[in-house]
Amino acid sequence: MSAAADRRPAVVLVSGGLDSATVLAIAAERGFGCYALTVDYGQRHRQELAAARRVARTAGVVEHRSVSLDLAQFGGSALTDPRAPVPEQPTAGIPVTYVPARNTVFLAVALSWAEALGALDIFIGANAVDYSGYPDCRPEYVAAFEKLANLATRIGVEQGGLSIHAPLIHMRKAQIIQQGVRLGVDYALTLSCYQPKGEGEPCGVCDACRLRAKGFAEAGLRDPLVVGATR
Amino acid sequence: MSAAADRRPAVVLVSGGLDSATVLAIAAERGFGCYALTVDYGQRHRQELAAARRVARTAGVVEHRSVSLDLAQFGGSALTDPRAPVPEQPTAGIPVTYVPARNTVFLAVALSWAEALGALDIFIGANAVDYSGYPDCRPEYVAAFEKLANLATRIGVEQGGLSIHAPLIHMRKAQIIQQGVRLGVDYALTLSCYQPKGEGEPCGVCDACRLRAKGFAEAGLRDPLVVGATR
Repeated sequence: MSAAADRRPAVVLVSGGLDSATVLAIAAERGFGCYALTVDYGQRHRQELAAARRVARTAGVVEHRSVSLDLAQFGGSALTDPRAPVPEQPTAGIPVTYVPARNTVFLAVALSWAEALGALDIFIGANAVDYSGYPDCRPEYVAAFEKLANLATRIGVEQGGLSIHAPLIHMRKAQIIQQGVRLGVDYALTLSCYQPKGEGEPCGVCDACRLRAKGFAEAGLRDPLVVGATR
Repeated sequence: MSAAADRRPAVVLVSGGLDSATVLAIAAERGFGCYALTVDYGQRHRQELAAARRVARTAGVVEHRSVSLDLAQFGGSALTDPRAPVPEQPTAGIPVTYVPARNTVFLAVALSWAEALGALDIFIGANAVDYSGYPDCRPEYVAAFEKLANLATRIGVEQGGLSIHAPLIHMRKAQIIQQGVRLGVDYALTLSCYQPKGEGEPCGVCDACRLRAKGFAEAGLRDPLVVGATR
């Protein structure tokens, strides 16, 4: 296999969660040299950033960059506002953990790096099945961003064919986990919880923890992060 | 006239240049309470940020925010790379001063703030006539972003009608200047130059200076920034 840096380059958004860790493994399996991008947007839980670094390092990326952009100053989300409680029961509609335009900001920054690298491929872990109902995780959203990317950039206008890959978009959480396990992803490195305790221990009751637990249960696998699980 | 904070809110991207200063005056004239947003993306010329502050303050905005996001680390543009010379003659195609995906990043951040504010209106000074040939200044680009914004956000999905206003898009530079002068914009506060000297004095030879000089000449007006001009 060629060295990662010699392969066709792709920018992969890596948050430190289960989904993006799986996407990174999928992009690498497809033969891309991966440039992992984490956006530090002022999320309450700084352990996410440490998880992203662990995941990227372990996956053998060409490069990992963390870019700071303070979306927390705008407010409007329980994920960036320490005063707003994270819901511990399922809620109807788009939940308060939605961060205004988060994936648009993430993809815009990824697009800027991709173009500077000469990369035509961007990967994102958006998922529209076992997800929290965020509007920027739907297939029509991803398609609209891809169209925009090709109009927005020199690389899109001159070469065309900029692709936004969302390989998980139609998968159930259990399928994502099975796929990741098959590709050797170590989910002990990831963090999904919206309100982890001290050293990154998941709360077990937030939306993200519930979706993750349901996914492992349906996959018939143990979550290596859950206390008492076999590591 | 009602106080700015009581009006319908709009986020207005303000760079410190002539175009965005005019857009800010247009948005205010249309009755919006303006929330000015400047993105500090690592541009070589920090005087731009000072100009943005002057322009926003003078226009009586409800609030002005500067958000830092280091696009310069990605490279790929003469506007963020101090080693790359700014061209002093017109060039064919998209020039080296193009910053990868800049307007997409700006609009994404503006969209995040707009949604947090509950604002359905975003203004940008994109212009497709007397411009530098950047792909993200064309009407089809702005239309694609508007479509994306309505798919991307809770406010777009639940209320619809998110608008990206680019009131200068079909105007010549001379028309923009005439419009701004009519609305009382003080162009002495603005800065267009890509490589200003010491205290923000324009170089007179870069693309931005040439377009600005041509605009004032066609409008039959003096540029208050040009040395020797009557202020």
